[in-house]
Amino acid sequence: VSRGRVAKLRTVLTDPILEFVETSDVIDLTWGHPGPDLLPVAEMRTAANQALDMYGPDALNYGASVGPAPILQWLRTHIGTIDSRAPADGELLITAGASQGLDLVCTMLTEPADTILVPAPTYHLALKIMRDHPLRIVPIETDAHGARTDAMADAILRLRRRGERPRAVYIIPTFGNPTSLSLIEQRRRDLVELAAGSDMLIIEDDVYRELVYDDVAPPSIWSMADAGSVIRLGSFSKTLSPGLRLGFLTANASIVDRLASGGLLDSGGGVNHFAALVAARFADQGGYLRHVTWLRAQLATRRDALVAGLLGGLPDAVFDRPSGGYFLWLRLPPGLTAQKLRPLAVTRGVDYLPGEVFGIDEIVEDDTLRLSFSLYPPERLAEGARRLSQTISDSIS
Amino acid sequence: VSRGRVAKLRTVLTDPILEFVETSDVIDLTWGHPGPDLLPVAEMRTAANQALDMYGPDALNYGASVGPAPILQWLRTHIGTIDSRAPADGELLITAGASQGLDLVCTMLTEPADTILVPAPTYHLALKIMRDHPLRIVPIETDAHGARTDAMADAILRLRRRGERPRAVYIIPTFGNPTSLSLIEQRRRDLVELAAGSDMLIIEDDVYRELVYDDVAPPSIWSMADAGSVIRLGSFSKTLSPGLRLGFLTANASIVDRLASGGLLDSGGGVNHFAALVAARFADQGGYLRHVTWLRAQLATRRDALVAGLLGGLPDAVFDRPSGGYFLWLRLPPGLTAQKLRPLAVTRGVDYLPGEVFGIDEIVEDDTLRLSFSLYPPERLAEGARRLSQTISDSIS
Repeated sequence: VSRGRVAKLRTVLTDPILEFVETSDVIDLTWGHPGPDLLPVAEMRTAANQALDMYGPDALNYGASVGPAPILQWLRTHIGTIDSRAPADGELLITAGASQGLDLVCTMLTEPADTILVPAPTYHLALKIMRDHPLRIVPIETDAHGARTDAMADAILRLRRRGERPRAVYIIPTFGNPTSLSLIEQRRRDLVELAAGSDMLIIEDDVYRELVYDDVAPPSIWSMADAGSVIRLGSFSKTLSPGLRLGFLTANASIVDRLASGGLLDSGGGVNHFAALVAARFADQGGYLRHVTWLRAQLATRRDALVAGLLGGLPDAVFDRPSGGYFLWLRLPPGLTAQKLRPLAVTRGVDYLPGEVFGIDEIVEDDTLRLSFSLYPPERLAEGARRLSQTISDSIS
Repeated sequence: VSRGRVAKLRTVLTDPILEFVETSDVIDLTWGHPGPDLLPVAEMRTAANQALDMYGPDALNYGASVGPAPILQWLRTHIGTIDSRAPADGELLITAGASQGLDLVCTMLTEPADTILVPAPTYHLALKIMRDHPLRIVPIETDAHGARTDAMADAILRLRRRGERPRAVYIIPTFGNPTSLSLIEQRRRDLVELAAGSDMLIIEDDVYRELVYDDVAPPSIWSMADAGSVIRLGSFSKTLSPGLRLGFLTANASIVDRLASGGLLDSGGGVNHFAALVAARFADQGGYLRHVTWLRAQLATRRDALVAGLLGGLPDAVFDRPSGGYFLWLRLPPGLTAQKLRPLAVTRGVDYLPGEVFGIDEIVEDDTLRLSFSLYPPERLAEGARRLSQTISDSIS
């Protein structure tokens, strides 16, 4: 399931620098990683210099456990511009990426063997983090509008009849991984109501919000909920650089306080202090906005190249044009399954992740696959789409 | 108990940058933080520039889950020079500091409610991390030679009679926090034998090894155990900069593989990729050794200033001169307790952590206190020692 494992085993004798190491001419659309040409090396160099010049030794000592002032202050304003609510004092915590944020939430706010509802398909490695804790996952069906909140209500009732209740729901409602679909507004409201009625946390994985290519991203569930039942996970991995390992979360002040007072942050201070100050300098004077505006245009061009390539080779291809995020979710023609087709695709020089990787228990779609358009430049994506279309065409004929 | 909480509450209206913010002229010997003058700002600036120049976008993408090649390769050699064994391929994992390493071990290698043996007194925030998971702590007595392995054997037997067994022991055997004492060699061997005989992991917190002021540090328990029962936690926080949030662990390859294949590292890649490459550049061409050699001399001078100040004011003061680490562990004259004396000390302009902060359950020493000599320059430490000695003298007379 995990591509990271494959790369690690493959390169065990020659330590790699990166998680993904290209080792053949296969166009590998499995990885939700940014292309190297999308990473702002020169600007980050300037920001690192500025952080050390401006903060001196304060850039290198144990940082404030919720994160250092400069990044908190910038984010409070910035979040107000990308969402319909800005966090108040005490409602923001710096994390070492959304994965670390999720891991921290699991450690501090769940009990082992708690039940968590997860609409499927979902980000498979988030499942892995939750299972490590260990939480019990109950899958929820989705449709074209996102997670089915009626199915969620049913699941809550079923649990209640057994004297149980779900501790939380984990959801990626905005340009979600793997489908890039967004939950419609009515269901966001339903979800807030369901959570309030059953004392259930909503863990909103919101890392793709700023990668929006058409229109604007919908307001976060966090921004719609007054009751403080939502923890929204944000990240600089998709907008600046994954290697910084930097993210943030917004939640009500008592939740932030609980997370910050756990052993990990109390012992080590802020979870990524130096990187947070570098990001704060990067963000200063419009640097972040300039970069993300440029990045968004680059990714839109990549999305367009992949979409055009697929439609060129497979006029009847079944997929929604992603309006944000990293991924295109393709449904195969009847009779084909993604897992069975994959070896043929690889021999034709293109790879993808079968949809079943993102399934949970019985909620598995074996006729879907995920294509990432973040890693390669447009012409390689077009070529990848051509190879994949040809593979599919040949298999149905 | 936690000083971080106090600082946070104190500064909630004016976000701080650091965990510790000096707000009065009290000489605050509670914090195990390096002084700002000990942090290598200029060298880190050069290293950050070099990392981005040399690795380009590879410094900013998702990193290899065990850590990037340059830091692994340097550490494999370096550890061989500071310990009596070097990790082989696969026996090394980069962490985001020892606290994150401990948190990861708890998540991946323990089950909730597992029992862990912990010699007391110990690092109180490590206890907090373990309890967050949640693990059950069983305290073990210590004496002048460190943890009492006979008491540990008894505890294992007591558990066995109840049909239980300890999953692990957590210990800081080298210049440990809070006492700066080291476990004697025979007990290290006893501990390895005990662990092997009861299928118990040893979690060796070894972050002070390189801060050695007299003689050399004893070989780690990890280096003495062939059976692969030891996870040794190392850190760059004490030697380079805590704000980098960078550390490492050594363990046998199957344990490293298990930790690296968990959700957190599989999802986010290496836990602090950019910082790891900056540290690798810092280490290159002797930069790390130059810095640590200088740092060791600085800390030895601080240790000497604190020791001389105490002996000057309190000729009968009861403590062991620390031969490594950050802390001096002082026993008060009969009749005094550290908690009760503290308010008076603060009014006299000096603060410390009472020994009971580091106790577990019934193993509490209320006549001890911990003084950190890492944060202040020698003359302030001397003045702090003078104020404390005066406070104590006045209280016994």
